[in-house]
Amino acid sequence: MKQKAGAAEPGVSPGRQKLYEVIFESDTPSGKFFDVALLIGIFFSVLLVTLESVREIREAYGPFLYFAEWVVTALFTVEYVLRLYCVRSPAKYARSFFGLVDLISILPAYLELFVEGTHFLIIVRVLRLLRVFRIFKLAHFLKEGDILMSAIRASRPKITVFLAAVCTAAIVMGTLMYLIEGEENGFTSIPRGIYWAIVTLTTVGYGDVTPHTTLGHLLATLVMILGYGVLAVPTGIFSVELTHAVHAPTRLEVTAGTSRCESCGHVETDATAKFCRHCGQGLSEPVVH
Amino acid sequence: MKQKAGAAEPGVSPGRQKLYEVIFESDTPSGKFFDVALLIGIFFSVLLVTLESVREIREAYGPFLYFAEWVVTALFTVEYVLRLYCVRSPAKYARSFFGLVDLISILPAYLELFVEGTHFLIIVRVLRLLRVFRIFKLAHFLKEGDILMSAIRASRPKITVFLAAVCTAAIVMGTLMYLIEGEENGFTSIPRGIYWAIVTLTTVGYGDVTPHTTLGHLLATLVMILGYGVLAVPTGIFSVELTHAVHAPTRLEVTAGTSRCESCGHVETDATAKFCRHCGQGLSEPVVH
Amino acid sequence: MKQKAGAAEPGVSPGRQKLYEVIFESDTPSGKFFDVALLIGIFFSVLLVTLESVREIREAYGPFLYFAEWVVTALFTVEYVLRLYCVRSPAKYARSFFGLVDLISILPAYLELFVEGTHFLIIVRVLRLLRVFRIFKLAHFLKEGDILMSAIRASRPKITVFLAAVCTAAIVMGTLMYLIEGEENGFTSIPRGIYWAIVTLTTVGYGDVTPHTTLGHLLATLVMILGYGVLAVPTGIFSVELTHAVHAPTRLEVTAGTSRCESCGHVETDATAKFCRHCGQGLSEPVVH
Amino acid sequence: MKQKAGAAEPGVSPGRQKLYEVIFESDTPSGKFFDVALLIGIFFSVLLVTLESVREIREAYGPFLYFAEWVVTALFTVEYVLRLYCVRSPAKYARSFFGLVDLISILPAYLELFVEGTHFLIIVRVLRLLRVFRIFKLAHFLKEGDILMSAIRASRPKITVFLAAVCTAAIVMGTLMYLIEGEENGFTSIPRGIYWAIVTLTTVGYGDVTPHTTLGHLLATLVMILGYGVLAVPTGIFSVELTHAVHAPTRLEVTAGTSRCESCGHVETDATAKFCRHCGQGLSEPVVH
Repeated sequence: MKQKAGAAEPGVSPGRQKLYEVIFESDTPSGKFFDVALLIGIFFSVLLVTLESVREIREAYGPFLYFAEWVVTALFTVEYVLRLYCVRSPAKYARSFFGLVDLISILPAYLELFVEGTHFLIIVRVLRLLRVFRIFKLAHFLKEGDILMSAIRASRPKITVFLAAVCTAAIVMGTLMYLIEGEENGFTSIPRGIYWAIVTLTTVGYGDVTPHTTLGHLLATLVMILGYGVLAVPTGIFSVELTHAVHAPTRLEVTAGTSRCESCGHVETDATAKFCRHCGQGLSEPVVH
Repeated sequence: MKQKAGAAEPGVSPGRQKLYEVIFESDTPSGKFFDVALLIGIFFSVLLVTLESVREIREAYGPFLYFAEWVVTALFTVEYVLRLYCVRSPAKYARSFFGLVDLISILPAYLELFVEGTHFLIIVRVLRLLRVFRIFKLAHFLKEGDILMSAIRASRPKITVFLAAVCTAAIVMGTLMYLIEGEENGFTSIPRGIYWAIVTLTTVGYGDVTPHTTLGHLLATLVMILGYGVLAVPTGIFSVELTHAVHAPTRLEVTAGTSRCESCGHVETDATAKFCRHCGQGLSEPVVH
Repeated sequence: MKQKAGAAEPGVSPGRQKLYEVIFESDTPSGKFFDVALLIGIFFSVLLVTLESVREIREAYGPFLYFAEWVVTALFTVEYVLRLYCVRSPAKYARSFFGLVDLISILPAYLELFVEGTHFLIIVRVLRLLRVFRIFKLAHFLKEGDILMSAIRASRPKITVFLAAVCTAAIVMGTLMYLIEGEENGFTSIPRGIYWAIVTLTTVGYGDVTPHTTLGHLLATLVMILGYGVLAVPTGIFSVELTHAVHAPTRLEVTAGTSRCESCGHVETDATAKFCRHCGQGLSEPVVH
Repeated sequence: MKQKAGAAEPGVSPGRQKLYEVIFESDTPSGKFFDVALLIGIFFSVLLVTLESVREIREAYGPFLYFAEWVVTALFTVEYVLRLYCVRSPAKYARSFFGLVDLISILPAYLELFVEGTHFLIIVRVLRLLRVFRIFKLAHFLKEGDILMSAIRASRPKITVFLAAVCTAAIVMGTLMYLIEGEENGFTSIPRGIYWAIVTLTTVGYGDVTPHTTLGHLLATLVMILGYGVLAVPTGIFSVELTHAVHAPTRLEVTAGTSRCESCGHVETDATAKFCRHCGQGLSEPVVH
C-alpha cells in the first residue's frame, strides 16, 4: 500500500496543493470533513447495491435506487479525476493499491451500460471502506494487522503443504464416496464427491449431499474424524508463527544487559559474564536498562 | 462490577444495618439463607418463562404459570426496593452492574401491561444467576474469569482487524455467489448471499442456502478452504494472549524485588537473596514494588 | 483406577492363586490367553448389540443374536463371580473402577427380564474395552493419557467459567430469536430457541431450525461470528495448560547444574553462582549432568 | 520415500544410463522436459476421470474420453516399464513409494477389463502429482512438510488416546440417542446413532439425522457442548508438538558444542567461545557432536 504515492511537492500551483490537502490528507478541518463525507458516501453506496438486490425493495424503489447509484458513481468519478489531477504523478497513484480500488469502484457502473448483469460488481466498492484505517490513523490497528500479516506470511509454506495434502485426500475420498454411493444417493459425479469431501473435512457440513449406505456412513465417519484431528494443524501452525511474530520485537529488547568487548568487539548477551569469551579481555560493566 | 456500591456504614439505624447484612452479605446464617433462597427464586423464574413458551405447557398450565410469574415479579420488586432502602447510597447501587441487572429483571413484567409481546424479555433474569459467583465467593472462578477477560481484552484489537477482514471477504464473496447462483437457487438477494458466506466461513453450515451450479460449488469450495485455514487465526491470537495473561503475574514477581550488587554490579532477581552470588558482597534491601 | 485392588497374597489356596494369575495378570501364557479371549469376547458382545439394533439383521437373525447375547452374558457373569472369588478382598474389587464396569456390563441383560426396553444399555460393555490399555501394558499410552487428563483438569475452572458464559449467552440469544422468528418459522418455544443458539454457537449447524426473517438472519450472523471468535477460547485455554502439563517433568530436569550451600543448605539453581546468595559462603562446583 | 532407489551406477550401458537421467533426474534439459510433460500428463489424466464421471459430459464425449484414457494408460505403462528397465535394481524401485504409486496408477485401467465398476479407481493417479515436490526440488516445502510430519508423528500417541476416548463416548451417546429417539425419528439403529454422535461431536452437523424429542434435544445440547470443549484437545496437542518440532533443531544446536572451563568449571554452551567468561581461562576445543 503505497500511501504517499505521488504526494504533491513544492512547485505545484497553490490550488492543486490545496486540493491535495483536502482529498489526500486529513489533518486540516476541510480534509477531515472530506474524508468523513467520503466514508459515509462509500457506506451509502454499498448499502444501495445491497438493498437493490432485494426483489421487494427493487420493485418498490427501483428508479430511486437507480438514480441514487448514478449520483454516487458520478461523485466517485469526479473524485477519481480530481485525485489524478492533484497528485504530482498520476501514474503512480493510479497503480497504487488505493488508486486501483478507486478505479475498479467506478468501472462496473459504466461497464453495465455495455454488458448486462455486471451491475452488482459495484459491490467491490466495499473495499474502499478499508480507507477507514488510513483516515482515522488507526495506527494501533494497522500495527496489529501487520503482526497478523507477518504471522500469516510465515505460516504460508506450511499451510500450503497442508492444504495440498488435504486437497489430495479430498479428491481420493470424494471419488471413493462416488463409487460407494453412486448417482442415486446424490453423488452424481466425482466433482460432487470432492465437494462433499471438502464440505465434510472442513466441518462445514451443509447436509445437501450426505451418504445413505452403510459403507458410505462408515467412510463419512472416517473422513469426519480425520477432518476433526486435522483441523488442529492450521491452528497449530498459525499459533506457533504468531508467537514468533509477537515476540520478535521483544527478543530485541532482551538485549538489555549486553556489553561489548573493547578489544575484539564481541557482543556479550550474558549479563553475568566478566571476561570476553573470544579474546579473554576483561569486560566493563554490562549496560543494564 | 462495583460490588460494595453503597455499603452500609456506622450511623445507619440497626434495622437497616441488619437488613443490609441479610440481603447484601452472606456471612451470617440468615444472609446465607436469603442468598440461597434468592438463587432458587431466580432459577425458578427463568424456568417459568422457558416453560411458558412451550405451547402445550402454556395451554395446560397457563393461568398457574401467569400467577406464579407475578408472584416472582412481586418478590423481586420488594427485594429491589429493600435493596434501595438499606444501602447507604441508593443511586450508587442503582447504577452498579448488579443494580442494573436487578432493575431490568423486573421491568419487562410491568412493561407487558402496556406493550404486548415484550413478555419474554423477562428472560434477562438469567443474568441474575451471575450472582452465584458472588454469593458462593467463588473467588477461584472469578480469578480465572479475570485472566480470561484480560486475555480477551488483549486479543480485541487483533480480532477486530481480523473480523473486519472476514466481513469484507464475506460481502465480496456473498455478492459473487448471488451473481453466480441467482434467485432460482435460493440466493434471492445480496444480504442472503452474505448470510451464506458467513454461514460457510464460520463452518456452521446450516445447509438452508447452498449452491447448485458447478461454478457455485467451486466458489463454495474456495470459501470453505479459506474459512478452514482462517479459523486458525482467532485461536492463535487468543492462545498467544492467554499465555501472556497466565504468565503476567509471574513476570511481575520477577521484576519486583530485583537488587544490584554495589560491588560487582550483578543484577539479582531473587528477592530473597542476601548476598551477591558472584562476589559474596552483602546486598542491600531489595526494591519491592 | 485401583488396578491392584485386592491382589492375592501369600496364604490363599494355590487354586485361587492360580486363578488369580490367569484372570488378573497377563504375564503367564494362560493369563495372556485369557486376556486376549476376553477382549475378543467384549468386542464381539458390543458388535452383537450394535447389529441387533439394525432392523433387517434383527428380523433375519433375531433368535441367533438373542441366544449369542445370553451366552456372552453367562460367560461374563461366570467371569465376574470368579473375579470376586479369587481376589483377596472382593469388596475392594467390586468398588474399583474396573469392578464397577464389569458389574454394570452384565446388569442390563438381567434387568431386561423385568423392565422392557433397557436391553440396549448392554452397550456400556464398550467400557470394558478400556482394559485393552491394561492388558497390553500400554504404559506409553497411559502416560500420554495422564498428561492429557492433568491438562484437562487444570483447564477445568477456566472452561467452566467460559461454558457458563456461553450458556447464559445461548439462553438470552435463543429467547431473542424466539421473539424475532416466532412459531411459524420453527422456533416453537424458548427451549427450541436455546437449542438453535447452541447448535449455532458450537458451529455444528444442523440446519433443522434456521431463521427465515431478515432480522433473524442478522441475529444469526452475529451469533455465528461470536461463536467463531469464541471457539478460540477453549482451544487457547487447553493449549496453555497442555504446555504446562508437558513441561512439568522437564522443569524438574532443569535442576541439572544445581548445587547446595554446605553452610545454610540453600539450593542454588544458577549454575554460574559462585557464592551462596543467602549466607555468602563460597559454593563448591555445581553438579553438572 | 526412497528417492534414489536403484539409482543407475557406472557399468550400465550408456543408453540405459541416458534413459535413467531423462526419466529419474531433472537436471538435464531433456530430464526437465520429461518431468514437466509427465506432470501435465498426470494432471490431464486426473481431469479425464473427473470429467468422465459427470453424466452430461460422459454422454456427449464418452468415446473420446474412453480413447484418451487408454492413451494415457498406455503411456503410463510404457513409462513404468522403462523405469523398471533403466534402474539398476528394478525390485527396489518397484517396492519404493513412488514405484508403488506408479504401479497402482495403471492397474485399475487393466483391472476394469475383468471387473466392472473399478474404473474410477484410476483416480489414485492423483497421488502421482506428489512428484511435483520432487521434480521442482521444492526443498523448502519438503522441509516444512518434514516439520509437520514430525509434529504429527509426535502427537500421534496423545491423539490416539484422545480419539479412542471420543469413539467410546460416541458409541455410548449414539446408543442413548437411539433409545431416546427411536426409529420413528430417523435413529433407525445403533450404528446410525453412532453416526449421528460423530457428526455432532466433530461439529460437522449435516442435519440428515437430528433429534426431535425434548430429551433428544437435551442430549444433543450436551453432546454439542462436549464436542465444542473437546475440539480444543487435538489442537492443543498439535500446537504443543509443533512448537517442539519447530524449536527442535535449535535445541540440538545448543547442546552440541558445549565445553567446560578446566579452571573454574563454568559450562560454556556457546561453541564459538574461546575463553571462559568467568575466569578468562583459555578453553579447549569444544565437543562438537
